[in-house]
Amino acid sequence: MNPPGDQFVQSLARGLAVITAFDSEHPEMSLTEVAQRTGFSRATARRFLHTLVELGYMRTDGKTFALTPQVMRLGTAYLSGLGLPQLAQPHLERMSAALGESTSAAVLDGTEIVYVARVATRRIMSVGITVGTRFPAYATSMGRVLLAALDAPALDAYFAEATLVPRTPRTLHTEPALRDELDRVRERGWCLVDQELERGLTSMAAPVRDRNGSTVAAVNISMTHTDTGEGHQEALAALLECAAAVSKDVAEHGLN
Amino acid sequence: MNPPGDQFVQSLARGLAVITAFDSEHPEMSLTEVAQRTGFSRATARRFLHTLVELGYMRTDGKTFALTPQVMRLGTAYLSGLGLPQLAQPHLERMSAALGESTSAAVLDGTEIVYVARVATRRIMSVGITVGTRFPAYATSMGRVLLAALDAPALDAYFAEATLVPRTPRTLHTEPALRDELDRVRERGWCLVDQELERGLTSMAAPVRDRNGSTVAAVNISMTHTDTGEGHQEALAALLECAAAVSKDVAEHGLN
Repeated sequence: MNPPGDQFVQSLARGLAVITAFDSEHPEMSLTEVAQRTGFSRATARRFLHTLVELGYMRTDGKTFALTPQVMRLGTAYLSGLGLPQLAQPHLERMSAALGESTSAAVLDGTEIVYVARVATRRIMSVGITVGTRFPAYATSMGRVLLAALDAPALDAYFAEATLVPRTPRTLHTEPALRDELDRVRERGWCLVDQELERGLTSMAAPVRDRNGSTVAAVNISMTHTDTGEGHQEALAALLECAAAVSKDVAEHGLN
Repeated sequence: MNPPGDQFVQSLARGLAVITAFDSEHPEMSLTEVAQRTGFSRATARRFLHTLVELGYMRTDGKTFALTPQVMRLGTAYLSGLGLPQLAQPHLERMSAALGESTSAAVLDGTEIVYVARVATRRIMSVGITVGTRFPAYATSMGRVLLAALDAPALDAYFAEATLVPRTPRTLHTEPALRDELDRVRERGWCLVDQELERGLTSMAAPVRDRNGSTVAAVNISMTHTDTGEGHQEALAALLECAAAVSKDVAEHGLN
């Protein structure tokens, strides 16, 4: 069902490229800068920028351009359609309140996990995490739970595409080591990652499954690392209970 | 600097309309349904859907189409460029931890507020709130803080466009009543909304200002309604402190 080449709408691809050219390093850009970052001619960049201004997705003072909050409607279209955040949120809140720790749900997107729900207590990570935050899947507990659920061809494709680098001295970052760990995760039904994403941070994750038993998301709990692993048993019990409760809701209501 | 009509890229407008046609009521659609909801011909809808599939923003099983998590990159382009969520988050976390209540930051988009940061404790609202959630500005404490900061022409434009309906029996929903209340908010520098958005819910908000004194966002704290208003003083003090701290960071680092 691939479309013939002439079915591809290049203008749409270019317009989306203009939107994603804006990021934390480039929140405001001149026409010239947008043209440079996208590789489009100034005339082309101008047409797309002004179309986005007219549609309300972009604002300009005549010199520089910046995205407007309306852009969030595009991301929200996905999130509100997903259903998972709504189903997971009350269970994450309960687990977070019981343990006093931050909890999250995420899905896999290419080689990355994307947070789709989050209950934050005190901050223990160096970066703020919010819905939409991404991390490389191999270095996170939710990522490993999601990778462990892939079938063999999908997992091969993942390793062909992923860039594995140590994030801390403890990060598993070779394909054989990660494949071994994924086997363990698949067998146990949960995953613990201790200081592999960031020093001082321990995280546990478990899969959310739909009525067919397919893993559709992961939920996690993150804690400050302790040498004794104190509190792990209590957290694991709460995590497995939470994952089962979200899975039950997903099975009942469906994700879409 | 308005572009001539022939500068408008209709294909981009149509592609974005296809994305926003998907929502919580329509998370998966057939080609026919997308054509119906957008008003495009089937041939047109097909070209846009397949372009989005090819770009990774849409998935299909050959029959129905659904957005992928990649769509969140578009909304994240705005959020990560904004800077505000990163600046506000630690202060919101501190206020939330001190009071045991949920805290948020929002900006104005047209007639709605949009949450750009959120620290949730226990759930007291009927709907789950997350980054990207929208409410009509007039019925919320953050909305009133943001409306109170508009200049006269912008406020006139707001009232010309907004649909004012009571959300509870207590909601102020006439233009004169709201204009009076906005005067009070402007004078006091903060806003309390008691059970106007939802029964049982009280919320207080204060403005975040940039170095020029312009209001760029609002922060809030939401609490269960109590008849005595107990805890309001403590919450208000924490809120004003939080708003001042975020404003200071915004003045120092800038928003963009």
